[in-house]
Amino acid sequence: MKRRTVLKSTALMIAGAALGGESLARQVDVNVQEDQFLDRIWATFRNRRSVRKFKPTPIPPEHIRTIVDMARTAPSSGNQQPWKFLIIQDRTKLDELKNALIEKGMERMRSGGAVTGEKLETEKKNMTRYFEDYLSAPVAMIVMTDDQSKYPDYNHHDGPLAAGYLMLAARFLGYGTVYATDSINPDVARKLFHIPERYRIVCSTPVGIPDRWPDPPSKKPLDDFIVRDSF
Amino acid sequence: MKRRTVLKSTALMIAGAALGGESLARQVDVNVQEDQFLDRIWATFRNRRSVRKFKPTPIPPEHIRTIVDMARTAPSSGNQQPWKFLIIQDRTKLDELKNALIEKGMERMRSGGAVTGEKLETEKKNMTRYFEDYLSAPVAMIVMTDDQSKYPDYNHHDGPLAAGYLMLAARFLGYGTVYATDSINPDVARKLFHIPERYRIVCSTPVGIPDRWPDPPSKKPLDDFIVRDSF
Repeated sequence: MKRRTVLKSTALMIAGAALGGESLARQVDVNVQEDQFLDRIWATFRNRRSVRKFKPTPIPPEHIRTIVDMARTAPSSGNQQPWKFLIIQDRTKLDELKNALIEKGMERMRSGGAVTGEKLETEKKNMTRYFEDYLSAPVAMIVMTDDQSKYPDYNHHDGPLAAGYLMLAARFLGYGTVYATDSINPDVARKLFHIPERYRIVCSTPVGIPDRWPDPPSKKPLDDFIVRDSF
Repeated sequence: MKRRTVLKSTALMIAGAALGGESLARQVDVNVQEDQFLDRIWATFRNRRSVRKFKPTPIPPEHIRTIVDMARTAPSSGNQQPWKFLIIQDRTKLDELKNALIEKGMERMRSGGAVTGEKLETEKKNMTRYFEDYLSAPVAMIVMTDDQSKYPDYNHHDGPLAAGYLMLAARFLGYGTVYATDSINPDVARKLFHIPERYRIVCSTPVGIPDRWPDPPSKKPLDDFIVRDSF
């Protein structure tokens, strides 16, 4: 559809120029710019990825602010805005989180009892690498909703909405994120960052320049999602 | 922050032009374009509104497709993509929905028993206008998740995520939406559109050119949402 519009606009521009119609040509210029603008928007939506390994490149404070500022433009029930964003940039804190997540993972594995001896050591190595990669980003964010908000029964809508906007805004600025619910264990995060009970953790995400942008995952055909007028 | 960046880029452009450094000037041009691009993105995030009254202007089929196509770029748990989008464009169906919603609303009011006589007539008029406005858009969409998806326990994240992306994509194309959970009664919609039990309704939204863009609602200060490093 987009290619067709561009072609149409280009044809119009040629027509405009041939007619010497300056204002038509200008109008057509605007259309072409608009098409290009939208093409970039859609490409950014499409190129958002779940990123699990990052470069250590720092993020300018204005970018962090913008990302949160855009997250909170998400719709919320009755405009209640029930969100809190914990922004962790202190490297010591990030390393503490990493170590606590590894420890929690190992504890679970040991108590499961299925993995022992040498295999357990291998698992520990894998887990360590996994969380080192996750927390190689210079920033981690924890998205929360407040149980004492105006309409707490609707927080389960508002939380993911803001987290989704956060990740898209980060992508527009060139950063990778990943919507982590279990990978970054909420209990571990709660304890480490003294998160009060009233704040429910929606998800956590590292934010940073990806080590590399992952390949696009396979997707269902668009028409599989669509039902017209009635089932 | 954005204004500062633009100023900086403009200063650089002047410097570049003064030096006659063509490649620097070009680089600076790119920066300015990038700033303008991002400014428009953030403006679009900020200018999304909850719209409850629309012009009847039709929406091109490509736009409807793009909106759904962008909705499904949202993250989903383990890439499960558990979504269905019911797209209602048939005016007869939209009117049936409107009438069924008014009927349901009146039924509730009557069974409540608190509103009677003339007051009940006034309420019916108000309700009729409310739903006429809501469904004055040429399209309504119902966002659903599939209970039989790969990881149904995570659908409560994935549903709002896709709905949020849908609404932002619509805004980029100039359309208004509103994330309706109770206003468009899910039971009424389920019955009318024969929605199978396995599909859980996340929200509904009209999609169309707003009658007018509502004023920005009042928002909490940005810093109220932010916690740094730890509570």
